[in-house]
Amino acid sequence: MKAAGPVSPATRVLTVPELRLDSGTVLRDVEVAYRTWGGLNSAADNAVLVCHALTGSADADSWWADLFGSGRALDPHRDFVICSNVLGSCYGTTGPLSTRPGAARPYGPEFPDVTVRDVVRLQHALVRALGVRRLALVLGGSLGGMQVLEWALLYPAMVDAIAPIATSGRHSAWCIGWSEAQRADPNWNDGWFDPQAPPLAGLAAARMIAMISYRSRASLEARFGRAVDGRGGFEVEGYLQHQGRKLIARFDANAYVVLTRTMDSHDVGAGRGAYETVLRGIRQPALVVGVDSDVLYPIEEQAELARLIPGSTYATLRSPHGHDAFLIEGAALGERIVDFRRAVAASRLSAGGAA
Amino acid sequence: MKAAGPVSPATRVLTVPELRLDSGTVLRDVEVAYRTWGGLNSAADNAVLVCHALTGSADADSWWADLFGSGRALDPHRDFVICSNVLGSCYGTTGPLSTRPGAARPYGPEFPDVTVRDVVRLQHALVRALGVRRLALVLGGSLGGMQVLEWALLYPAMVDAIAPIATSGRHSAWCIGWSEAQRADPNWNDGWFDPQAPPLAGLAAARMIAMISYRSRASLEARFGRAVDGRGGFEVEGYLQHQGRKLIARFDANAYVVLTRTMDSHDVGAGRGAYETVLRGIRQPALVVGVDSDVLYPIEEQAELARLIPGSTYATLRSPHGHDAFLIEGAALGERIVDFRRAVAASRLSAGGAA
Repeated sequence: MKAAGPVSPATRVLTVPELRLDSGTVLRDVEVAYRTWGGLNSAADNAVLVCHALTGSADADSWWADLFGSGRALDPHRDFVICSNVLGSCYGTTGPLSTRPGAARPYGPEFPDVTVRDVVRLQHALVRALGVRRLALVLGGSLGGMQVLEWALLYPAMVDAIAPIATSGRHSAWCIGWSEAQRADPNWNDGWFDPQAPPLAGLAAARMIAMISYRSRASLEARFGRAVDGRGGFEVEGYLQHQGRKLIARFDANAYVVLTRTMDSHDVGAGRGAYETVLRGIRQPALVVGVDSDVLYPIEEQAELARLIPGSTYATLRSPHGHDAFLIEGAALGERIVDFRRAVAASRLSAGGAA
Repeated sequence: MKAAGPVSPATRVLTVPELRLDSGTVLRDVEVAYRTWGGLNSAADNAVLVCHALTGSADADSWWADLFGSGRALDPHRDFVICSNVLGSCYGTTGPLSTRPGAARPYGPEFPDVTVRDVVRLQHALVRALGVRRLALVLGGSLGGMQVLEWALLYPAMVDAIAPIATSGRHSAWCIGWSEAQRADPNWNDGWFDPQAPPLAGLAAARMIAMISYRSRASLEARFGRAVDGRGGFEVEGYLQHQGRKLIARFDANAYVVLTRTMDSHDVGAGRGAYETVLRGIRQPALVVGVDSDVLYPIEEQAELARLIPGSTYATLRSPHGHDAFLIEGAALGERIVDFRRAVAASRLSAGGAA
């Protein structure tokens, strides 16, 4: 299969023979694109799994560069860091651009619905194939944070600590509304399109909407105000159009629809019981991080997660940049994660190494 | 010309021979659709002008029904209430659906840019034609509130009091971004479309985006949460789709583009001097109303207006419903306006009727 955007040459691909989805659909020969940094130790317990957001890829050292390095949150001298492209995406993992085994054309809009749990189950197959016994930390923001919560719930015995960031235990009506408005383009989801003429305008429009939700009023005011560009338009208009053009050069329209639906379907309570009870059942130490200017996943929602997850620490990332601060403020976020990992290690030592 | 949506049979139309726009374009035989309630007194000073928002019409007694009535904010026994459809709209006033004098087809996307000041100048021609000498109050929310501010600045000697509600002295980058995302549909603004096949999907998508911005997270959570409809979709999705369908049945796509650009162009400082100085020059008593859950025009912006306009009173409308609260919470808003009008009248009496 081809990827929509550039994939690092360091990316490897594992083929998983079979994956049963929550919808009942069984996918065969599922490819999962991944990268690793550092090496697995002999106890196979130094792995850290990084989960990416909506349009992310396995190249975590690119989109979360500030977190990587000696003495930082993700230290390849200590950690075996793993990041894989999620199911339904277009950076090397099976998704709408892939061709169904034995079929002549890509799945396109017929790619099945994917839940966050499906995404995590495929990651689990990868992690096991890599020989990992325990995950010292699973972390991620936004859609990545949803995967983090599901990891804690699906594979509790394998996960030592979690860091869900700027995310949600169940996608709110507010967030579903934002998703639905982005999917409103009619050339978008309701049929096949010529791969030579994909619904790029719809994808660009979706990105423009999304970019507003990812930032904040203060962020846009400080950066653009009412500044006008050379063509007489407002600079903020040109900025949004540029963001739209950038995404269509690197992402697939059907993958965008699949993964926004994945996020909308997210609800840790589904099939498990009361939402609050399910979160209260999480056993790992957790670092819950909220961004004080986040429009999509407001800090109240993060505070609720922290209140419900018993062993959690809550940290606010102060930033004017809205939801995207979890990517933009990598250095500050990294410090919180370093502190958290240190505290987790200390509490383990004081518990007599009884893990 | 035909209107896109239903127009009350009570609507009358005035033809203004000529209107010179800020862009330099001169429109001829400009029609302005309007309604009135009550009668003009002999001093011709009991007129109240109601200014409508983006997709509003002259039917103020329909969209602001709670404000009308004996003893209420707009009392036809006391007031001569006037409301006109704005220039560039599609409820009877000249706009993209109108045919240029002598031309064969409607303006469509060639309708000229309209500023808030252009809108107000046409209203001024109407108000003068109706024999009005003074406006006891000019009020409106959102785009209507922008008109209110321009009334105070363009015709200071004619306006006795103003009530700008959930609005802005200059459209923010944040609001321009929201507008631009709504205009992102490619079938939308860049050419002629078959009147039999207008870009309805684009207009519906725009409305879906707008509806998110008009409400709030709390409002959508309380009403929909993660409730699922009979077809397996989320109720909030169906709600947004319904809002999209409703608008395309009553509004013109080009008028939507024209009027969102009108709002984006709004800046009371343009051509007048420093923004703060211009607002400080407003002489009328003003009631500035903000909605505490407004995503688009946050209360900080309303508080700033109130701080800058010397004779202003600030009131917060407490509501979970976001920007749209200025329409939804008509009863509470009406009370604030009644109090304000009473205070204005009292201060006039104590000043010895020296107006």
